[in-house]
Amino acid sequence: MVFHLVPRCSARLFWASSGWRRTYIQGASVGLKWLGCPRDSYSPLACRRYSSVSGSPEVMLTPERYPVQRLPFSTVSEEDLAAFERIIPGRVITDPEQLEACNVDWLRSVRGCSKVLLRPQTTEEVSQILRHCHKRNLAVNPQGGNTGMVGGSVPVFDEIILSTALMNQVISFHDVSGILVCQAGCVLEELSQYVQERDFIMPLDLGAKGSCHIGGNVATNAGGLRFLRYGSLRGTVLGLEVVLADGTILNCLTSLRKDNTGYDLKQLFIGSEGTLGIITAVSILCPPRPKAVNVAFLGCPGFAEVLQTFSTCKGMLGEILSAFEFMDAECMQLVGQHLHLTNPVQESPFYVLVETSGSSAGHDTEKLTSVLEQVLNSGLVSDGTIATDQRKVQMLWALRERITEALSRDGYVFKYDISLPVDRLYDLVIDLRTRVGPRAKHVVGYGHLGDGNLHLNVTAEAFSQELLGALEPYVYAWTAEQRGSVSAEHGLGFKKKNVLGYSKPPVAVKLMQQLKVLLDPKGILNPYKTLPAQA
Amino acid sequence: MVFHLVPRCSARLFWASSGWRRTYIQGASVGLKWLGCPRDSYSPLACRRYSSVSGSPEVMLTPERYPVQRLPFSTVSEEDLAAFERIIPGRVITDPEQLEACNVDWLRSVRGCSKVLLRPQTTEEVSQILRHCHKRNLAVNPQGGNTGMVGGSVPVFDEIILSTALMNQVISFHDVSGILVCQAGCVLEELSQYVQERDFIMPLDLGAKGSCHIGGNVATNAGGLRFLRYGSLRGTVLGLEVVLADGTILNCLTSLRKDNTGYDLKQLFIGSEGTLGIITAVSILCPPRPKAVNVAFLGCPGFAEVLQTFSTCKGMLGEILSAFEFMDAECMQLVGQHLHLTNPVQESPFYVLVETSGSSAGHDTEKLTSVLEQVLNSGLVSDGTIATDQRKVQMLWALRERITEALSRDGYVFKYDISLPVDRLYDLVIDLRTRVGPRAKHVVGYGHLGDGNLHLNVTAEAFSQELLGALEPYVYAWTAEQRGSVSAEHGLGFKKKNVLGYSKPPVAVKLMQQLKVLLDPKGILNPYKTLPAQA
Repeated sequence: MVFHLVPRCSARLFWASSGWRRTYIQGASVGLKWLGCPRDSYSPLACRRYSSVSGSPEVMLTPERYPVQRLPFSTVSEEDLAAFERIIPGRVITDPEQLEACNVDWLRSVRGCSKVLLRPQTTEEVSQILRHCHKRNLAVNPQGGNTGMVGGSVPVFDEIILSTALMNQVISFHDVSGILVCQAGCVLEELSQYVQERDFIMPLDLGAKGSCHIGGNVATNAGGLRFLRYGSLRGTVLGLEVVLADGTILNCLTSLRKDNTGYDLKQLFIGSEGTLGIITAVSILCPPRPKAVNVAFLGCPGFAEVLQTFSTCKGMLGEILSAFEFMDAECMQLVGQHLHLTNPVQESPFYVLVETSGSSAGHDTEKLTSVLEQVLNSGLVSDGTIATDQRKVQMLWALRERITEALSRDGYVFKYDISLPVDRLYDLVIDLRTRVGPRAKHVVGYGHLGDGNLHLNVTAEAFSQELLGALEPYVYAWTAEQRGSVSAEHGLGFKKKNVLGYSKPPVAVKLMQQLKVLLDPKGILNPYKTLPAQA
Repeated sequence: MVFHLVPRCSARLFWASSGWRRTYIQGASVGLKWLGCPRDSYSPLACRRYSSVSGSPEVMLTPERYPVQRLPFSTVSEEDLAAFERIIPGRVITDPEQLEACNVDWLRSVRGCSKVLLRPQTTEEVSQILRHCHKRNLAVNPQGGNTGMVGGSVPVFDEIILSTALMNQVISFHDVSGILVCQAGCVLEELSQYVQERDFIMPLDLGAKGSCHIGGNVATNAGGLRFLRYGSLRGTVLGLEVVLADGTILNCLTSLRKDNTGYDLKQLFIGSEGTLGIITAVSILCPPRPKAVNVAFLGCPGFAEVLQTFSTCKGMLGEILSAFEFMDAECMQLVGQHLHLTNPVQESPFYVLVETSGSSAGHDTEKLTSVLEQVLNSGLVSDGTIATDQRKVQMLWALRERITEALSRDGYVFKYDISLPVDRLYDLVIDLRTRVGPRAKHVVGYGHLGDGNLHLNVTAEAFSQELLGALEPYVYAWTAEQRGSVSAEHGLGFKKKNVLGYSKPPVAVKLMQQLKVLLDPKGILNPYKTLPAQA
C-alpha cells in the first residue's frame, strides 16, 4: 500500500482554518504563518514542543499550558493509515506542514500534535472511519471551519482530525418552504449566498461566516447576530444526519416543521460540540429574505439609557427588530486606534446598533423614524445616524463586528462570553475595572444586548498568571450568583469545560456524563472537551 | 393512620379533565358524566369492566380494546397509601367517583383503572413521591389537563395518577424580557391572561387552552395556532425543572435566552410525554403582545390556489403573518350542520384563515389589504372577509377551531395528525376518500397549512374494524413514502406508539429505548406510552 501524500490542501482547507482572519484582518493575513508539528517530527507517541519554522511566535502545546493527561487511546499505526487510505483514497493527510493549520485554533491559544488529517466526502466514509477508530480505540477530533473560541475544534494531543471540509454539497432546497438540506461542511457564507439568490436568508449570521461550517455551527449551537429575530438553532434546525461513535449512521434528516414521533434525538447533537456524534448533514429552515434592512447607530449617555432604548425599540419596532447590539466607549476607542474606523456619531459612554428587517421599506422607515424621534427627544440617545444603503449598513456593522479583531491587536486577550439578566449586564464590566485596575490595558463590554449576552474582554500586554488569578474564578462566581451562564454562545470546548459547574448543578453534570457514556462508551469523540473529567 | 378521602375534587381538577369540552360544547357539558371504576370496586389487582353508573355509554377499558399486557409493577398497598399520606397529607385521593374523570381521556377512547390520585403542590413532594414509587416499583402516570389526543395522559392499567393540578403558581415574571417562570400545573389560558395584562402573550395557543397545563404542553411539545410565528417550544422554553424517575430533582430552570454550557438536558424532556421525567416547573419566553390583530377568512377554488395564496401571504405579509390555517368544504359543512355556524363567504372547495399580528394597525391593514387585492384580482381567492374587532375575529377563528367538536358530533372519529411536504398535503385526503368510499360518513382535511400539518379525520356511524383496516396502516405508509411525520403535534402516547417506525429508522428507535433505560431503568414513568415495547 502506497500512501498518497496530497501535495497541497485545497483552497477551502486553508480557508477553513484561516479564513476568519482573512475576512477581517485582510492584508494582514498575507504574512500569517501557521505553526505546528514539522514534517520530521512524525512519531506515533510524540507530542513534543517544536521551534517555530518561520520565526513567528510559537503557540504552546496545549498540555504544556494546561494540566491535562493523555487518555489511553491507541496511537495511529501504519495499518490504520492503510485502512483509512482504503476508505478515502488520496484524502489521508500526514504531511506535517499541511497538518499545522489544523492543529492550532484561530486564536492561536491551543495546539495539538495530530499526525493525521482525514478528509471524507460522504457520510458513508465518515461511518467507515469511525467504525475503524471505534474498534481500534483511536480518538477523533471532528473539525469544521476551526473558528471556535474555546479550543473545541483542534486536538489536545494526537487525536485524528476528521475534517468536514470536503462535505460541502447542497443536497436540496425547497423554494416555497425555504428548507435547505446540505452536507455539514458547507461554509455558512456560501450557503447564505445560495439561499439569498433564491430570496431566503440563513437563520444565523456570524463574524466567522467566511470560514465556519454549518455542521460546526450546529454542533456548537452557534448564536450570532440574527438570534434575536430568528431564535435558536434548536428551533430552526429541522433534521440532522449524525454518525455515532461506533460508525452507526443515525438518519434524522427530515424536512418537517413539526414531528412529534418519539424523542427528538437531533437535540442531543446540537451544541454537544462533536462529543456525542459527528454531524454529517443538516436540514434547516431559512426565513424569507427581508425586502428592507435599516441600521441605526446611536450614542447613549449611560447604560440605563441603553436598556430603555432597548425597551422602546422592542415596543415600537416589534416584529421588524432584527438586532440590538451594544458596545462601550472603550470598544469604540479600540476600533478607532487599531483599525482606524471612524465613530459616526458624537462621543458617548455607550453605543447601540439597531437593525430592522421587514417586508415594506416605507413602513419600516416610518417605524424606525418614530423610534429615533422618541429616543432623541426623551434624552435616551444623544446622537444617532441611520443607514439603508448596503455600503453604509456594512460600515456601521463593521464598528460592532470588528471589535474582536481590534482587541486581538491590543495585546493578550482574556475572553468571556456570558449570559446575564439584561439589567445587570454591564455591572460586571464596571466591577471588574475596579478589581483589576492598572494590571489590564482595557476592560471592555459589548455584545448581543437583545439576547442578554455580554462579551466581556480584558486586554493586557501579555498573558499574566496574576491577572488571570484576578479574573478567574471571580467572573464565573459573579455570573453564577446572578444565575447567569458562563458560556452564552461559545460553548465549553477544551478551555471552559471545567467551569460547567458554575452554570449547571451536579445532578445535571452527572446526567451529561451518563449521556456521553451511553453514546460514546470508549470516549473517542472529541475527548478532553465539553465535560469535566469524571471524578 | 386515617386516610382523608377528600370529599370533592377542586373545581380545577374537574376542569382539568372536562374543561376542554366545557369550553367548546358549552351547554352540552352539563349532562356529561364521567365513568370509571365505581367506589365498591377497589381491589389492588382488579381492572374489570363496570357497567355505567348513569346510563351514558361506557368507555371500554384500554386492555379490552388493545392487545397490551400489564407489566410486573407492584400494586399499591395500604402501606404505600400511608407513605403518600405522610408526603401530601389530605391530597391522596382514593374515592372511585373522583378517580373516574382522571382514568378516561377527554375523547373517551381509552380508560384505565387507577385506584390512586396524588395531588402534590411542590417539587419536593413530587420528588418524595417518585422516590417512594421507584423504591417500590410502582408505575406512575403523570397527568396535566388530560387534553391529549393519543391516550398519553391516562393510565392504561392501575398506574398511580400524579396530577399537577395543584402546582399552579406563577413563580416570577420579568416585564422587560417577558420571561415567565411558573409551576407545571398552571392552566395555559390563565397564564395567557396573566401575561396579557403585562403586555405579553404566551408563545403558544391551543383549542384546549382552557384546561391544558403548561407542563403538559411542554411534555408533549404542543404545537398549536401560533407555531408559524413564534416557533417550537424547543426554542421558546428556556428552562425546566424536572423530577427524575428515582426522585432526583434536575434543576435546569434558567431564564436565559442563551446558555451553551454542556448538553441541553431540558430538550430530553420536551416532547417525551412524561416517560423520562416529570416536569414540575417551566421557564418560557413570552413575545410582546401585538398591538394589532387582523383576521381574513377566504374562499379558494382549489388546493393549488390555497398554496399560492400561502406563498403570496408569506411574501407580502412577511413578519406580520401569524397564522395560515385551512379547511375543506366538508369541514365547513360539518360546523354548519352540527354547530350552526354560518359560512361568512361564498361556498368554496377550500377556505383559509389568515391572521396578522403586528405593532402598527395602520401598516398591517395596508399590507393585508394589498394581499387581498392581489389574491382576489388574480383569482386565487373567490371571496373573502376581514375582521379587526375582537368579536368578529373570534367568530372567524371559531369556524376553524370548532371543527374538532363538529367532527365528534358526527359519529366515531378516526383521527390522524400528519406532517407532509406542503404541496402534497391534501393529496392524502383525496386518495382516502376514494379508498374508503361509502364506509365513511366524511373524510375531511384541515389544519396548520403554514406548518405543513394536516389534521385528517374520518367519521363513521360507529367504530368499525373494517374501516380501521382500510385506514391503517395505509395512512401511515402513505405518509412514510412522502417522508412525512405520522404525528406532527399530538405525540404518540398510548394509541400511536406502535407507528413510530413509520417516521423513525430502527437506529433512532433503539437509541430512544436506550435513553428510556438510562433515565428510567425500572420503566415506572408513564409505561406503555411513546415507545413500542422492546423486542
